[in-house]
Amino acid sequence: MGGLTVLAALMQRLPDQRFIYLGDTARLPYGSKTSASVVRYADQAAQCLVERGVKALVVACNTAAAVALPSLRNRYPQLPIFGVVEPGAAAAVAAADESGVLVLATETTVLGGAYQKCLLRQRPALRVFARSCPLWVTLAEQGGGSQLDELSLTVIKTALRGFIETSQTIVLGCTHFPVFRSHLLHLLGSDRVIVDSAQTTATVVAAAVGQAALHEQSTRSVDPMQMTQFLATDGVDRFRRVGEYFLGQVLPAVEWVDL
Amino acid sequence: MGGLTVLAALMQRLPDQRFIYLGDTARLPYGSKTSASVVRYADQAAQCLVERGVKALVVACNTAAAVALPSLRNRYPQLPIFGVVEPGAAAAVAAADESGVLVLATETTVLGGAYQKCLLRQRPALRVFARSCPLWVTLAEQGGGSQLDELSLTVIKTALRGFIETSQTIVLGCTHFPVFRSHLLHLLGSDRVIVDSAQTTATVVAAAVGQAALHEQSTRSVDPMQMTQFLATDGVDRFRRVGEYFLGQVLPAVEWVDL
Repeated sequence: MGGLTVLAALMQRLPDQRFIYLGDTARLPYGSKTSASVVRYADQAAQCLVERGVKALVVACNTAAAVALPSLRNRYPQLPIFGVVEPGAAAAVAAADESGVLVLATETTVLGGAYQKCLLRQRPALRVFARSCPLWVTLAEQGGGSQLDELSLTVIKTALRGFIETSQTIVLGCTHFPVFRSHLLHLLGSDRVIVDSAQTTATVVAAAVGQAALHEQSTRSVDPMQMTQFLATDGVDRFRRVGEYFLGQVLPAVEWVDL
Repeated sequence: MGGLTVLAALMQRLPDQRFIYLGDTARLPYGSKTSASVVRYADQAAQCLVERGVKALVVACNTAAAVALPSLRNRYPQLPIFGVVEPGAAAAVAAADESGVLVLATETTVLGGAYQKCLLRQRPALRVFARSCPLWVTLAEQGGGSQLDELSLTVIKTALRGFIETSQTIVLGCTHFPVFRSHLLHLLGSDRVIVDSAQTTATVVAAAVGQAALHEQSTRSVDPMQMTQFLATDGVDRFRRVGEYFLGQVLPAVEWVDL
């Protein structure tokens, strides 16, 4: 579901593009599953999208991007494949001062160390902190980002314990986490730099495919949301309900697919 | 993972029995998935266990028991199949006064209405309340039941909002929830009756298979835990780690199975 924050950012930057969005809702969350399972799920999802003729693939999940990108690129060498980790890490390195970077992500993303490696490869002396936030995905899907209530603030404050005073720059290393932006600024102070991997990924993808897109026929007269195809592996009603909360608008029909 | 509370209760009552426990960790949690997906997953899990020669099947997950029991019984008419909903509901009806019963469960269990139907079938005039507690499963697997800390109490208090004054009798309609027993007594008062579906199910299963078991050769000299076979569909290391928290003892080797 969190990948919808990436889709929203992409649709804003590339309103003429047609998107196919696949949510593997039957097996979510990925963030507490092993790398082996996530690699297998990502392979199945990519195959489904490739069969539908996509000309580029965005792995809009930090957990999947962190562990499955090499095998996907290996399997589809001709297809441009974008992850969310590299753009987020690059933006964080650009923003970071001597206090370093704090990565907030799921258990599997943090344990896999993809952000930490990517950040240190770009600036070896960087101070890097990483914290897994296991309850945040469920909370986000329950609408916990919509207000600064006691439950949301307690869940977020608890995960940050011991990490409040670490870094000025914070990477939201899970696509669900942008909904907690105001909670983080409220708890950590409004002067923190929050790097949203959804936004940074959309910028990278838009730059890469935007050039090619200029030569295509414009479809701007059509509502981008109506051009978008939504696929889900579990119930389409729940997908529409939770999806509306993430996208801020009503979703068109959702198609059920079996991976 | 929550099914381990049922296993623990069963092992206590039937120390001579050999158990095979299958945790579908690759696709957990079931509680936010649709009935159609849960039915499919339960069918696959049952097949795996039947192939290993089990002589009785306990569906130790309230969500799966609530939606998949009819199709499982239909498919394996010769096999005794036990759910966790009926024993829990029966114990709640026996305990309930005029203030009725409050069912705490996952989203899918509450929406499916299996507990509500089962309770009302047994006592049509019963006051029945049901509340879905979406964060509790994740919190339980993170060890949130081990102390009365601010995070656990806030998560539990928030779910109970509006339901504090409802019923004297409370059914833990999810196998993860027994770890929050002391939190509930702390928040609701120690005079509430808490029906643990793990315990009530174990009592029903023990009564049904206990008789037959008497005629078998006793294996009591062997440690019951060493006789138990653990299967998991995702990482065996995480299973052992979380499982140890639920069972209160170190697990033997865990075998990975692909459903």
